[in-house]
Amino acid sequence: MELWYTEKHTDTVDFSIKVKKHIYSEESPFQTIDFFESEEFGTFFTLDGLMMVNEKDEFVYHDMITHVAMATNPSIKRVLVIGGGDGGTVRELTRYKHLEKIDMVEIDEMVVRACEKYLPITACKLHDPRVSLYFEDGLAFIHGKVNEYDLILVDSTDPIGPGEGLFSEAFYKDCYTALADNGILINQHESPYYPNYAREMKRSHSKIEKIFPISKVYQFHMPTYPSGHWLFGFASKTLDPIADFDPKAWEAFGLETKYYNTELHTGCFALPTFVKKLLKE
Amino acid sequence: MELWYTEKHTDTVDFSIKVKKHIYSEESPFQTIDFFESEEFGTFFTLDGLMMVNEKDEFVYHDMITHVAMATNPSIKRVLVIGGGDGGTVRELTRYKHLEKIDMVEIDEMVVRACEKYLPITACKLHDPRVSLYFEDGLAFIHGKVNEYDLILVDSTDPIGPGEGLFSEAFYKDCYTALADNGILINQHESPYYPNYAREMKRSHSKIEKIFPISKVYQFHMPTYPSGHWLFGFASKTLDPIADFDPKAWEAFGLETKYYNTELHTGCFALPTFVKKLLKE
Amino acid sequence: MELWYTEKHTDTVDFSIKVKKHIYSEESPFQTIDFFESEEFGTFFTLDGLMMVNEKDEFVYHDMITHVAMATNPSIKRVLVIGGGDGGTVRELTRYKHLEKIDMVEIDEMVVRACEKYLPITACKLHDPRVSLYFEDGLAFIHGKVNEYDLILVDSTDPIGPGEGLFSEAFYKDCYTALADNGILINQHESPYYPNYAREMKRSHSKIEKIFPISKVYQFHMPTYPSGHWLFGFASKTLDPIADFDPKAWEAFGLETKYYNTELHTGCFALPTFVKKLLKE
Amino acid sequence: MELWYTEKHTDTVDFSIKVKKHIYSEESPFQTIDFFESEEFGTFFTLDGLMMVNEKDEFVYHDMITHVAMATNPSIKRVLVIGGGDGGTVRELTRYKHLEKIDMVEIDEMVVRACEKYLPITACKLHDPRVSLYFEDGLAFIHGKVNEYDLILVDSTDPIGPGEGLFSEAFYKDCYTALADNGILINQHESPYYPNYAREMKRSHSKIEKIFPISKVYQFHMPTYPSGHWLFGFASKTLDPIADFDPKAWEAFGLETKYYNTELHTGCFALPTFVKKLLKE
Repeated sequence: MELWYTEKHTDTVDFSIKVKKHIYSEESPFQTIDFFESEEFGTFFTLDGLMMVNEKDEFVYHDMITHVAMATNPSIKRVLVIGGGDGGTVRELTRYKHLEKIDMVEIDEMVVRACEKYLPITACKLHDPRVSLYFEDGLAFIHGKVNEYDLILVDSTDPIGPGEGLFSEAFYKDCYTALADNGILINQHESPYYPNYAREMKRSHSKIEKIFPISKVYQFHMPTYPSGHWLFGFASKTLDPIADFDPKAWEAFGLETKYYNTELHTGCFALPTFVKKLLKE
Repeated sequence: MELWYTEKHTDTVDFSIKVKKHIYSEESPFQTIDFFESEEFGTFFTLDGLMMVNEKDEFVYHDMITHVAMATNPSIKRVLVIGGGDGGTVRELTRYKHLEKIDMVEIDEMVVRACEKYLPITACKLHDPRVSLYFEDGLAFIHGKVNEYDLILVDSTDPIGPGEGLFSEAFYKDCYTALADNGILINQHESPYYPNYAREMKRSHSKIEKIFPISKVYQFHMPTYPSGHWLFGFASKTLDPIADFDPKAWEAFGLETKYYNTELHTGCFALPTFVKKLLKE
Repeated sequence: MELWYTEKHTDTVDFSIKVKKHIYSEESPFQTIDFFESEEFGTFFTLDGLMMVNEKDEFVYHDMITHVAMATNPSIKRVLVIGGGDGGTVRELTRYKHLEKIDMVEIDEMVVRACEKYLPITACKLHDPRVSLYFEDGLAFIHGKVNEYDLILVDSTDPIGPGEGLFSEAFYKDCYTALADNGILINQHESPYYPNYAREMKRSHSKIEKIFPISKVYQFHMPTYPSGHWLFGFASKTLDPIADFDPKAWEAFGLETKYYNTELHTGCFALPTFVKKLLKE
Repeated sequence: MELWYTEKHTDTVDFSIKVKKHIYSEESPFQTIDFFESEEFGTFFTLDGLMMVNEKDEFVYHDMITHVAMATNPSIKRVLVIGGGDGGTVRELTRYKHLEKIDMVEIDEMVVRACEKYLPITACKLHDPRVSLYFEDGLAFIHGKVNEYDLILVDSTDPIGPGEGLFSEAFYKDCYTALADNGILINQHESPYYPNYAREMKRSHSKIEKIFPISKVYQFHMPTYPSGHWLFGFASKTLDPIADFDPKAWEAFGLETKYYNTELHTGCFALPTFVKKLLKE
């Protein structure tokens, strides 16, 4: 049977995946959630029709959202994940035995429940005793918090729909306040290639730059996201991801990773010239 | 009108581009050549139905095939391009005023003629006085040549069809012999993500490693190639692309580039762990 | 979300339906069964990836398989349906109050159960007291039966997979024997337009012609089947669908129908010249 | 190479044809004209992205627009074709040796010239001495003409774009006046299946009914038009297509036809019940 999921990367560019089975489809109060089985990517799920996570390349995203910050500051103890309903970011965090507290604030409980059922590969560590799940609006959750976290990971959808506020200046300011003095903010930073994504990348970056003394961007290869060229933002009050990076400290954790490594840690901050220009505009 | 070009990245993954006009379609003695106009990528052309070059992201490929080697050894004088019928690699080479000789061996003259007509953005420097065009089989051309080039750029199609021999051990040996003592070989090295491409990546790498004392691989973001994660191989007799790299020497050339820069030079060799593993298999 | 079901009408012709939800997907011992919800066609289901029945145009098929024969001989009492797991043919038959016995032999019980759940529009009359369901091979069921039915309706899939035997000469002979002297056989007769279907149409017709004294073909517009031009075969021992047709007798039943009517009864046997030629080949 | 032309039959139903070559693409003052080569349908062309004519099933359309009227009144001498730029309707008309005058009024000369070049199968008889070509607006051309034609064939596009006026009441009135007392008007009458087409079918029919004493609709199988179920309108002042039909008179012309025949002549007016209902609404 020919059943194809298509994501329109632009109005004139389609990315299509042959689907074996459409295993879940529900409207939550926030978005439409669909799960599929495919040959190439295993199980994958979409929110409002956009690819979020699949079994084949989720490791790229979850390595890169987590380990760059954890390696920059191996003393991080208290982490807040905003979004990340699939659980993959929490899974990577729980591998660090020294972490004391992992709060995850996901607005849409239905995403978490569906991932627990259909994507245990990512949702497998949500019951770690250090993890607290909050099914709330991340913006409200963080507002008013002071010096509570060493690391905030914004694992959000695109800035349309429920993820929109997570790209606002007010939110970034609240993150700043909620972070300790050596705190780090990592945020989903969109992509430089297709114009719609590049615009959001620039908007997000210009807002964060105003608030955080250190604001950098790093890249990775995410084949199932539009263009495959994806970015995270690294913002902090004091720590520089390269100058303050001690590869040996991270290697001492003894973690095996499929994408991240300490060479790549530095390499991923080396951006193409056109991306650097866009970020300066 | 809805007219869509589709490249099957795998049997179950399609990448589709809405086409405004199909402006050229011919069978050469070697392959089927098609040119299209599109909104997102401007003019693009395919060989045997696979995306080769488009106006939007050709700069990525041509920066990365050329400048990494030129920056590793700024004294390169004699260059051989094998394949590269679109002319983009030669265009980048001609920007180096100190180059003395650029030989380009392309088996399919029809590709060059069509690119001159429809893709002047890449085919614009083929009449530079230092450029000699040979419409011949690259394998035969290089066979028997000794110490004639400082740099060989293998700008080939995938190892199916006319490009096949350019992935053979015999060919790599001939390249070795044709290179000077500090010679460098750059070759199109496929991609680590989809299995068919990863297999060719591994085969190519294992052959080159046997022949060249230094054999490395570097990556870049090429959104219109399958997975967007693409590689070149860097092989040489003596020069190491990082240890022997002098950013200032390259910067002294004063070239403006849209993708390549001297930070990225080092960064692009930092490969994800899964790619490093595949290359060692 | 963009999720599209595609049926390849030929290797180079696709018919695609945007799907809202893929509500069922199972492998039965005989075939793959999938149910979908769509905007244009409502719920539809496929067997081995081919469109069988949808809420929008099922009435065409079920009117035409049933009423042409019932109107030709209003005295029919005993009917056998072979295939027809969706129940639509039985539904139309049960509207005739004077029918005494409706046997339905469907090889794949899972089709019936799924239709009862997801397509009550067709599967709503399977519990009529005159209906007996047999989940058996239609070929075996009919073999050896003599003069047991006034009408046999072969509501089969294409002659690939489980439907294959229902296009064989041995089967048509068994139908002949199982029918009363004024018995009628209606069979799914494929389509004249695309070569693969036209070949099966001709094969089926030439076999039936050898066995039944009267063998005709009638056409209808079935938009969701390949080409939209579909046929049933009308074969009988003595009755001619036009010469023996009494419109008033059928109209006396007082049935409302959306496709069939007594004018169309005659009109549908008027075939285009190219179809007549193909059937004579 | 995978290049597919898609016509959206509705927003959620696509019909796609694999294209070998896109051989022509121009903007005329009236519409966008594209020609393609395909395996299944040979050469085909589209106006504003909608399938008009292809080598495989043009015979259906051109048989049905021409022969039903010519057989109803074998004394027709003067014919006006409005639209029909591909020439297929004129080709069928020229087969009647007794016709004296065939005027064809096509607003878009570029369509005719392109068909002469790429679709000689339909455009082959435009130089018949009885044919006069007028590249004008059909509405203006016919306005004011009195009793000049025995038959008017409106071979138009859909009522969007240049074809719009050809579905207006004023135009139908002008046709009435331009026709002789036993004159016949045949018009492209859209389709009953998909709602957008059914709406136009009803609008057209209700307008014609007001003007012509006799107004009927006949159907045919046109696989490459949306749903494959297509209609022509038959309107006349005095002649009834069935009551006044003399099969022998038409057969005396000795024409071989692939779709039309004298049985089908009557049969094609037998419409499904749902179509009859729609036409009465």
